[in-house]
Amino acid sequence: MKENRIVKLFGIKYPIIQAGMVWCSGWKLASAVSSSGGLGIIGSGSMYPDVLKKHILKCKKATNLPFAVNLPLLYPNIEEHVSTIIEHKVPIVFTSAGNPNTWTKELKSNNIKVVHVVSSVKFALKAELSGVDAVVAEGFEAGGHNGREETTTLCLVPDVVNAINIPLIAAGGIVDGKSMLSAMILGADGVQMGTRFVACKESSAHDSFKNMVLKAKEGDTKLTLKELTPVRMLNNNFYREIVQLYQENASKEKLLKKLGKGRAKKGMYEGDLINGELEIGQASSQIREVYSAAQIIKDIMNEFKKLKQQINIESKFNF
Amino acid sequence: MKENRIVKLFGIKYPIIQAGMVWCSGWKLASAVSSSGGLGIIGSGSMYPDVLKKHILKCKKATNLPFAVNLPLLYPNIEEHVSTIIEHKVPIVFTSAGNPNTWTKELKSNNIKVVHVVSSVKFALKAELSGVDAVVAEGFEAGGHNGREETTTLCLVPDVVNAINIPLIAAGGIVDGKSMLSAMILGADGVQMGTRFVACKESSAHDSFKNMVLKAKEGDTKLTLKELTPVRMLNNNFYREIVQLYQENASKEKLLKKLGKGRAKKGMYEGDLINGELEIGQASSQIREVYSAAQIIKDIMNEFKKLKQQINIESKFNF
Repeated sequence: MKENRIVKLFGIKYPIIQAGMVWCSGWKLASAVSSSGGLGIIGSGSMYPDVLKKHILKCKKATNLPFAVNLPLLYPNIEEHVSTIIEHKVPIVFTSAGNPNTWTKELKSNNIKVVHVVSSVKFALKAELSGVDAVVAEGFEAGGHNGREETTTLCLVPDVVNAINIPLIAAGGIVDGKSMLSAMILGADGVQMGTRFVACKESSAHDSFKNMVLKAKEGDTKLTLKELTPVRMLNNNFYREIVQLYQENASKEKLLKKLGKGRAKKGMYEGDLINGELEIGQASSQIREVYSAAQIIKDIMNEFKKLKQQINIESKFNF
Repeated sequence: MKENRIVKLFGIKYPIIQAGMVWCSGWKLASAVSSSGGLGIIGSGSMYPDVLKKHILKCKKATNLPFAVNLPLLYPNIEEHVSTIIEHKVPIVFTSAGNPNTWTKELKSNNIKVVHVVSSVKFALKAELSGVDAVVAEGFEAGGHNGREETTTLCLVPDVVNAINIPLIAAGGIVDGKSMLSAMILGADGVQMGTRFVACKESSAHDSFKNMVLKAKEGDTKLTLKELTPVRMLNNNFYREIVQLYQENASKEKLLKKLGKGRAKKGMYEGDLINGELEIGQASSQIREVYSAAQIIKDIMNEFKKLKQQINIESKFNF
C-alpha cells in the first residue's frame, strides 16, 4: 500500500498546494488554504524583506497548521529573505527560478523542508541531487514564469516521475478534482494550483483582475517574452504591445524597456487591466466564480472522491 | 449509467483510435489496430487517389472490423479521395485541417460517420454545427500539424467537453493506459494516439525514424513554422536550419523555400534524419520499444484497468 508521500511529507490533510504567486498570495490566502487542509504558500517574490516578515508573523497567528514560503532564487535580497524564514521557523520553503544547490543545504540544516519547482527532467534531476525533499513539475499551460522546454503537464509528469525517486507535485492546468485525479494517475503525489487560487476570496489580486480571470476563455492566455523569461499572461493591451514589437523585429533591449518595472504589480495588484501584466494559466478558462479557499478545497475533494467511484461503476469507463 | 459513446458510435471494443498520420498509417497499421479492438485509420494526406484506393481495398481484406480514413480538407485532389471513400464504403472518416462544412453533409448522406479534428473550443463548436458525429480535441503536445491557440490537452479537453454535446476524443500526449484514463477523467469519451503508433511494428515509418523516436527525450520536440502551419517535430538538423532562419529574421517566403516539398516523406518514410521533417509528439519521450499494434492495445488496456482498481485501494489516492 503506497501512502501519499505529500500528505506525509508536509503533515497536511490533502495533497493540494496553493502556488506562491506574486501579488496574490500573502498571509490571508496562505493561512486560509492551510486551515482548509491544503498547504498555503506565501509568495515572497513581490515582497520586501520587512513585508515578508509581517506576512509570516500574521500567517502564524492565523493558523497553527503548516504553511510555506515561495522563494525565487534570483530575488535580489535573498539573504534577508532566508534569514527571516529561518528566524521565524517557517517549516517549508518552495524554491524556484534559480539553482537549487545555492540554498538547499542551508535551509535543510535549519530543519526546513525544501521543494524546488522545475520545468524539465534535467532540472528535476539537478534538484534531486541538490537534496530537496520534493519537486514541483510545472507544465507549459501554467501561468506566470514558465520553462523553455514547453513540455505540457500531461507529458512532463510521467517523464519526471520516471526520472526521480523523491515525491512529485504536478502544476500547470490543474484547477479541480478531475485535473487533480488525472495528474495523480499520471504519477504525481500531489498537485499545486496557482490560477485557481488567484480567483479566490482571500487572494490579494485586484478585484478587476479576478473578474477578468472569470471571463477568460480558452485561447485567451499567451506565452511570450521568450527571449527574456518566458511568461504566460492574459491577452490584453500590454500583451498586444509586445506582439507589435515582435512584428517590428524589436531587439531584446526594446522588449526589456517595454516590460519596464512593476508591470505585474500594476496589473495583478493595482487592477490596471490595460497596461498591467496579467499573469495567469490556461486553466483560467475553467474558473467561473470567486470562492473562499475553504470552499475551493471542499469542492475539489468532493469532485475527486466522486470521480474515483464513478470510474468503477460508469460504463463509460468499463468496456 | 453513461455508456461509452465512442465504443457505441464506431462499433469497436475499446475507445482507442490510431491517428491518421502521413507516411506512417497505411492499411497495415489501420487493419492491425482495428483487428485488435481499436479503430485504425488510413492517413490519406500522403497518398495519391489510386494509392488510397489500394490501401482501402487491402484494409478491407485484412479486417472485417470498422476502420476509418483521415481526410485533410485542404488536400488538393479531395474530390477524388471523397469519391473513393464513398465508392468503397469506408464506414468512418476523420476530417482535419479545413472547414468541416465543406464535406460533412455529402459524407453523412452516404452513411459515413464523420469526426472532425479541432484545436480549440471555437472550432469544436463550428464542427458540431456542421453535423459531425464527434470531434477530436488535439492539444499543443501533439505531433505534426498543430493549432494556433497552443492550448494543452489537459486544458482543452474540459473546455471542449463543456462546450459541445457530441462525443469527444482526446489527442495529444496520450500514449498509454494512464494518459488514456487521465483524458477520460477530464471528460473525453475516448482517445486518439499518433506518436505511440508511429513506433509500431505495422507503421510504415522508416526504421531509422522509429529508432529516433525511441531515443527521444523530454524537450526533444519543438513546435515551429508558426507563420506557415504550426508543426511539432523532432529537434534535428532540419529543425535547426529553421531556427537559424528565424534568427536571421527570414521572411515567410524564405521559410517556405527552406521547407520545400516532401520534407516529411524524406524524414519519416525515407529515413533521412538529417534533412527530413520528423513529425512526432512530446510523448515520444515515453516510448521505449517498437511493439505490434495488438501488443500496444493490450498493454494500454491492462494498465487502464489496473489503474482503475488502484485508485480505490491505494492510500496514495485515499486521504
